Amino acid sequence: MTKLNQYKSFSTMYNFDTGELDPKGRVITRKLSHMSEMYLNQEAAEELLKEDPLVYEVFNVEVPETIAHIQHCVTILYPGKVGDEYFMTKGHYHEILDRAEIYFCLKGKGQLILQTKEGDFDMIEMIPGSVAYVAPEWAHRTVNTGDEPFVFFAAYPGDAGHDYGGIETEGFVKLLMEENGQSTLVDNPRYQSVE
Amino acid sequence: MTKLNQYKSFSTMYNFDTGELDPKGRVITRKLSHMSEMYLNQEAAEELLKEDPLVYEVFNVEVPETIAHIQHCVTILYPGKVGDEYFMTKGHYHEILDRAEIYFCLKGKGQLILQTKEGDFDMIEMIPGSVAYVAPEWAHRTVNTGDEPFVFFAAYPGDAGHDYGGIETEGFVKLLMEENGQSTLVDNPRYQSVE
Repeated sequence: MTKLNQYKSFSTMYNFDTGELDPKGRVITRKLSHMSEMYLNQEAAEELLKEDPLVYEVFNVEVPETIAHIQHCVTILYPGKVGDEYFMTKGHYHEILDRAEIYFCLKGKGQLILQTKEGDFDMIEMIPGSVAYVAPEWAHRTVNTGDEPFVFFAAYPGDAGHDYGGIETEGFVKLLMEENGQSTLVDNPRYQSVE
Repeated sequence: MTKLNQYKSFSTMYNFDTGELDPKGRVITRKLSHMSEMYLNQEAAEELLKEDPLVYEVFNVEVPETIAHIQHCVTILYPGKVGDEYFMTKGHYHEILDRAEIYFCLKGKGQLILQTKEGDFDMIEMIPGSVAYVAPEWAHRTVNTGDEPFVFFAAYPGDAGHDYGGIETEGFVKLLMEENGQSTLVDNPRYQSVE
């Protein structure tokens, strides 16, 4: 019996209470200090940096970065605001631009913010049970618009990779702010079109 | 503003109570008559065919079948037995063999049965929260070992495809039967090694 395939199947356990994976895998921890310049109100950011809150954590199951595989992770995006702007992920394009992604919302609520390099913008609401499909070529960022942790499972092609640089330079076209207790999209005055 | 990307992002809603997707997408309905020859006890299968019970349903979100995309679906595998053998899915390899798959268990319980063309065998327990990773090259079948619907979300590379033929000819090395109220793996007397 020849063993062609040495890569084994395995499982990871998602905890519906804590939102964590077991084993945790490769954990990415993003505190405000890792991304404070992304928020519009820099005065509020400076003030909040004194306590440097945890904005989000990602628990990545590690699999090879090839097209045969499916990367997958769970993100816990904590509730909070910098000024009126909700806590959010950095957002990224895939390094191989032409790669989709799926988000399955498990807890809390938020919005999925989407944008192309051409400046097209889209937004998808996420509540528990929402299966959001990020089409290839769209940058994606999640925003916690609620008052509890917003938790979602993500899966994307093994070779997709992350391109944070593009979106760090351009910014997103729109920002999600709380205005009179309502989440409201506003134009991002700092957005720089690539064209 | 040039619109390079005409493929839009969208979302589908998973219902935690019914296990269904909304919209349902492309629905695959497998009754016993679609797979009765796969069960060991053919006498029991014949008897049960009179009512031809629904064994499982798959709700497929439709996305293009290319490597840029992620196929995704929800399966409801109903509880039941044919003789002592639990209700199960047909099981398949991917048409492009070198493609992984992820299962996220949402309801009920079962086992994920895995096998390579070389006859290697593996099994992974699935309970709500289990994130099972089917490594590339492994055929995969799920089995409902409980008494309520076993529901799981699956994601796999856009171009993977399905190869049911291989496993229909060979069968799986082992079968999952109930013996004295316990799920028990037994050798499949009808298994035909490809070698």
